[in-house]
Amino acid sequence: MTAYSGVAGLGDAKDITVKGLEVVKHCRRVYLEAYTSVLTVGKEALEEFYGRELILADRETVEQEADNILKDADLCDVAFLVVGDPFGATTHSDLVLRAVKLGIPYRVIHNASIMNAVGCCGLQLYNFGETVSVVFWTDTWKPESFFDKIQKNKQNGMHTLCLLDIKVKEQSLENLMKGKKIYESPRYMSVNQAAEQLLAIVQNRRLQGEEPEVTENTLCVGLARVGAVDQKIASGTLQQMSTVELGGPLHSMIIAGNMHPLEIDMLKLFAMDESSSEDNECQRNT
Amino acid sequence: MTAYSGVAGLGDAKDITVKGLEVVKHCRRVYLEAYTSVLTVGKEALEEFYGRELILADRETVEQEADNILKDADLCDVAFLVVGDPFGATTHSDLVLRAVKLGIPYRVIHNASIMNAVGCCGLQLYNFGETVSVVFWTDTWKPESFFDKIQKNKQNGMHTLCLLDIKVKEQSLENLMKGKKIYESPRYMSVNQAAEQLLAIVQNRRLQGEEPEVTENTLCVGLARVGAVDQKIASGTLQQMSTVELGGPLHSMIIAGNMHPLEIDMLKLFAMDESSSEDNECQRNT
Repeated sequence: MTAYSGVAGLGDAKDITVKGLEVVKHCRRVYLEAYTSVLTVGKEALEEFYGRELILADRETVEQEADNILKDADLCDVAFLVVGDPFGATTHSDLVLRAVKLGIPYRVIHNASIMNAVGCCGLQLYNFGETVSVVFWTDTWKPESFFDKIQKNKQNGMHTLCLLDIKVKEQSLENLMKGKKIYESPRYMSVNQAAEQLLAIVQNRRLQGEEPEVTENTLCVGLARVGAVDQKIASGTLQQMSTVELGGPLHSMIIAGNMHPLEIDMLKLFAMDESSSEDNECQRNT
Repeated sequence: MTAYSGVAGLGDAKDITVKGLEVVKHCRRVYLEAYTSVLTVGKEALEEFYGRELILADRETVEQEADNILKDADLCDVAFLVVGDPFGATTHSDLVLRAVKLGIPYRVIHNASIMNAVGCCGLQLYNFGETVSVVFWTDTWKPESFFDKIQKNKQNGMHTLCLLDIKVKEQSLENLMKGKKIYESPRYMSVNQAAEQLLAIVQNRRLQGEEPEVTENTLCVGLARVGAVDQKIASGTLQQMSTVELGGPLHSMIIAGNMHPLEIDMLKLFAMDESSSEDNECQRNT
């Protein structure tokens, strides 16, 4: 009689917790949320490992048909799988609130999220300031507000985790206006793209006579597929981030603030400079 | 040939990931880190569920005998279990650095940490500023620096996660001076104690002519045993936090910053005021 939420883990099928797997096996219906993050393995791999069918829940399903997800959840158990921790996104709070309103008990099963897994690069979690989202710029919309948050964190000595934009099942403006449900190919922002947008903002600020705190030489960390076997981490300057090769999605980037000696030692393991590439290989090959 | 790190989860034995459990089962030696956090079940329950013996690693073992933990890890697999995510504490980065120095490949298996699991109260993770640690005051040592960080976060509109002090296997000053390895009983700071210390600082600041941003009426959230079946969450003022009954350890507290409407709705589920107690029961009974 319980709606469960968030049990999937970050990397692959086996990153689900034992408790989460039990829930998945016994629930009547199991939804897989598929738009705020992406699991490096596909739905089929999960279905095979879990030994049961999953219902893909895209943004439309969750935001417009939330009551369908909760249908009969007072009579049977329903699970809602989220990649990472269930409360990374507000839409999942909404689902909890609906369940409570309908008198349906719910339970949360936690798992690693990018918000804590980024600690694997060696930067201490409690030294992070506000997390920011870097969105894809368009020809007409180039917001810079995340840059000010990054600068504020840096002024306070804090690191900033930048979550990079995901566009899944988005409609073009043309198709949206015509009411055509034709969707664009999914796009995941790379560390390169995020770095380029940041570098463009640095230039803009200089043109406006500012001396930005964050520059080409600011120390950053690029992370790809954290938790997966082919995870990659690279530390270097913002300039270097614009050309680093990290492979497929999902990517995240950190703008470093003040550094503890132990944090510096850890970042050296992932340094893009020649001098530390040996250590870097050691980590990559594990 | 790999030293693994951090696979245990937050609540009970079944919060380990499937991947983590496989690692635990096949490793030659498995250490359980037992001083930066506490699992609500004991070592014995873990051993029974994992089907193997665990070696308890207290602060002494990890900080003074780290090389013993890594002994022969180039020849066999060794696992080091951390409650929560492995990189919450700097000591675990130290272990990674030692492994790399010795040429021992390592691998991290992530799991939920209090740093992301606090999202279960409904406050959005990306609206948190710097995390602070609230330490036990002594007669002669009453640091207030965490209060300034909380105020800074609040001024920036951000929530603050307060990690509450843990004293495990600590020696009294007397025994330390005498070189006697006699340890005090473990102590875990409760939300009540943390709130009382914060209230005392508020008073101090007023005596110094300040008008603190954080006061008796500031909205807070108390959390106990997050991820366990008997988890408790209560939202109310800082004053209310000094008397709220949350039961056994571990406790954490959040000082709320600016609130999104959805965050307000979520916190109402856990409100200490009469008006919302019904909803609160609904959550507690799941």
